[in-house]
Amino acid sequence: MSSITLPDDLALEAGGRIVLVVLDGLGGLPHPETGLTELETARTPHMDDLARRATLGAHVPVAPGVTPGSGPAHLALFGYDPVRALIGRGVLSALGVGFDLRPGDLAARLNLATFDAEGRVSDRRAGRPSDDEARRVVARVVDGLRAPEGVEVHLIPEKEHRVVLVVRGEGLRAELGDTDPQREGRPALPVEPLAPEAAATARLVQDLLDQARALLADEPAANGFLARGFATYEPYPGFAERYRLRAHAAAKYPMYRGVAKLVGMEVREVPADAASTVDVLERAYDDFDFHFVHFKDPDSRGHDGDFEGKVAAIEEVDALLPRIEALAPDVLIVTGDHSTPALYREHSWHPVPTLIRSPWARPSGERFGEAACRGGDLGVFRGLDMMALALAHARRLEKYGA
Amino acid sequence: MSSITLPDDLALEAGGRIVLVVLDGLGGLPHPETGLTELETARTPHMDDLARRATLGAHVPVAPGVTPGSGPAHLALFGYDPVRALIGRGVLSALGVGFDLRPGDLAARLNLATFDAEGRVSDRRAGRPSDDEARRVVARVVDGLRAPEGVEVHLIPEKEHRVVLVVRGEGLRAELGDTDPQREGRPALPVEPLAPEAAATARLVQDLLDQARALLADEPAANGFLARGFATYEPYPGFAERYRLRAHAAAKYPMYRGVAKLVGMEVREVPADAASTVDVLERAYDDFDFHFVHFKDPDSRGHDGDFEGKVAAIEEVDALLPRIEALAPDVLIVTGDHSTPALYREHSWHPVPTLIRSPWARPSGERFGEAACRGGDLGVFRGLDMMALALAHARRLEKYGA
Repeated sequence: MSSITLPDDLALEAGGRIVLVVLDGLGGLPHPETGLTELETARTPHMDDLARRATLGAHVPVAPGVTPGSGPAHLALFGYDPVRALIGRGVLSALGVGFDLRPGDLAARLNLATFDAEGRVSDRRAGRPSDDEARRVVARVVDGLRAPEGVEVHLIPEKEHRVVLVVRGEGLRAELGDTDPQREGRPALPVEPLAPEAAATARLVQDLLDQARALLADEPAANGFLARGFATYEPYPGFAERYRLRAHAAAKYPMYRGVAKLVGMEVREVPADAASTVDVLERAYDDFDFHFVHFKDPDSRGHDGDFEGKVAAIEEVDALLPRIEALAPDVLIVTGDHSTPALYREHSWHPVPTLIRSPWARPSGERFGEAACRGGDLGVFRGLDMMALALAHARRLEKYGA
Repeated sequence: MSSITLPDDLALEAGGRIVLVVLDGLGGLPHPETGLTELETARTPHMDDLARRATLGAHVPVAPGVTPGSGPAHLALFGYDPVRALIGRGVLSALGVGFDLRPGDLAARLNLATFDAEGRVSDRRAGRPSDDEARRVVARVVDGLRAPEGVEVHLIPEKEHRVVLVVRGEGLRAELGDTDPQREGRPALPVEPLAPEAAATARLVQDLLDQARALLADEPAANGFLARGFATYEPYPGFAERYRLRAHAAAKYPMYRGVAKLVGMEVREVPADAASTVDVLERAYDDFDFHFVHFKDPDSRGHDGDFEGKVAAIEEVDALLPRIEALAPDVLIVTGDHSTPALYREHSWHPVPTLIRSPWARPSGERFGEAACRGGDLGVFRGLDMMALALAHARRLEKYGA
């Protein structure tokens, strides 16, 4: 007896066109003086107009209480469960820095760390170096590192002490133990192969980490790396295979284009700003069934702790919505990948306001905002279910059973 | 560590009596002129009175975005997950056409398709024939088909190109690959045994499909079948075993009686209409712990696109509710199996209004309708959880852990 994968096995070849507008970090927290979130504070006449014709709800990106990075949050929105071990943490980090992964690449998360004279880890984060300082140290390693014939090594600084390692070569294996001893005062663990087939890769990675220690021997703080989360990148079935959608992404930042490409979306042009993101959408519109349109600024202002700036960034997207509506997609979704409340200054776990405007909506509110969405017809739902809802509203799913 | 199945392992032998009233296709979409759904438009004084003494919520029958057939939707309401490979798609389709399956029967979903002179599939749906046209073509096959000694073959037209195949015989196996190549321009796949034990069944089914091609050779469009979703019917543990409930069904239509029997409900009389459905309930009332009472008309009028007709069908059931209340069940549930909005003219994925009237309700609204239910104490919940809630309100579940 065969089992069924939902919604994939119900996807039809034809149906309506879908536009998914993502305001990065859209969800917020109420301002102490007004009780209104950033979205509720913003003047958003176009979103409010859509809301009155839309099904509303609030999605939980990964799981209740879990604060996702942008990679996992977008994967969930696209219907790929980021928790199901499908995607290793190293791969997620490589995606996060916009690295253009190829199948078979080995990725890991590195920490710059401080090792004492006896080789014990005295600071697992090397005193949290500035981004500039980390870039300087990583550049020294990159300049001096020698990889074996046929192997490429990439070291990409992420933020402060966090660095991403990508190794490209033949037959690399990810069954490798972490080297991070998790506590200070202990030596780094050797790179241990967790399967016999991973022995050669373990030796290769150990050699790279040893070279880095030698190259940074005279550094006062950041004089070596700890490694964890080894993973190889295996491509997943994309939107065409899973949902029968020809999909396109309009996104300025490399990380979001990277995740979009991973799931089989086409990227034709790189927008320069919010307005040109809509230009890119317009030019590609007729050639695709599904468009992912990404706006970064609400998240950036949230990270800055800039409540008013985030309000303005949301209003900027609102002003662009009539151009998207003018394309007349059958289904228009406006949501975020996660919350980045300005008062919290980081990504958070809070549910994310969502509207789905289609001819089959069950409207329930007058405004687009956290309060209206939590009382919506979808209630609080999993981000992972967004694609099934998008396909349903586009009449792209056949009935399950007679 | 032993695991526990909820709610089954907590079910008590005694407790209150439960009546589950299902208005088929109850959920709707708002009328463009009033913003009110069919249920919200209907004058339902008795449902509204119940709502004021009930816990409200909206259930998602199978999964977000998934439009269920009536079979899967009822199985979910009865606490049987229709997705978990428990019930194959062929079996669900056979249930859907009201076929009286027996244990060991092999069922599959067929498409009438068009094959070109080289045997390639030129239209996977045979040009979507009318129901009458499909019946004519299927009758030709039924008349000419020769099955081996001891094997019965049933072909039941479902709708347009969709046909259900049921094979009855000894030792049939369902480990068979689909023959649908999924794309046009390719030949049908052979019926492949996915396990060695399925080889004989594969040969049998291949021969049936070959015979059908030969019998339909002169048909211009529908000249063969594609097959998928092979499944054998295995009976499940019923209401008595799972919930310790003696259960009874009052339902006019064969499909619903069929699903009810599958889960161990007793069917004593076949009602002729809505009013006599309550007669059947009344006569059987004292002999059972649980009654499933099914009203079909709201779904039928939804399929017709008849908004006012669906309103009237809901009002007809409302007028019968005082007779059900007069029986004084401890728990009275009013809900639907899925939505069939008159504006959509088909089953849909929208959440379904639900009220649970019991002494332990947490009332939250003045009316029974989509808007009141989405704000209810249950919020948006899985149809699969309905039985646990029913048992809880009947005090038929013991505490889990001390």
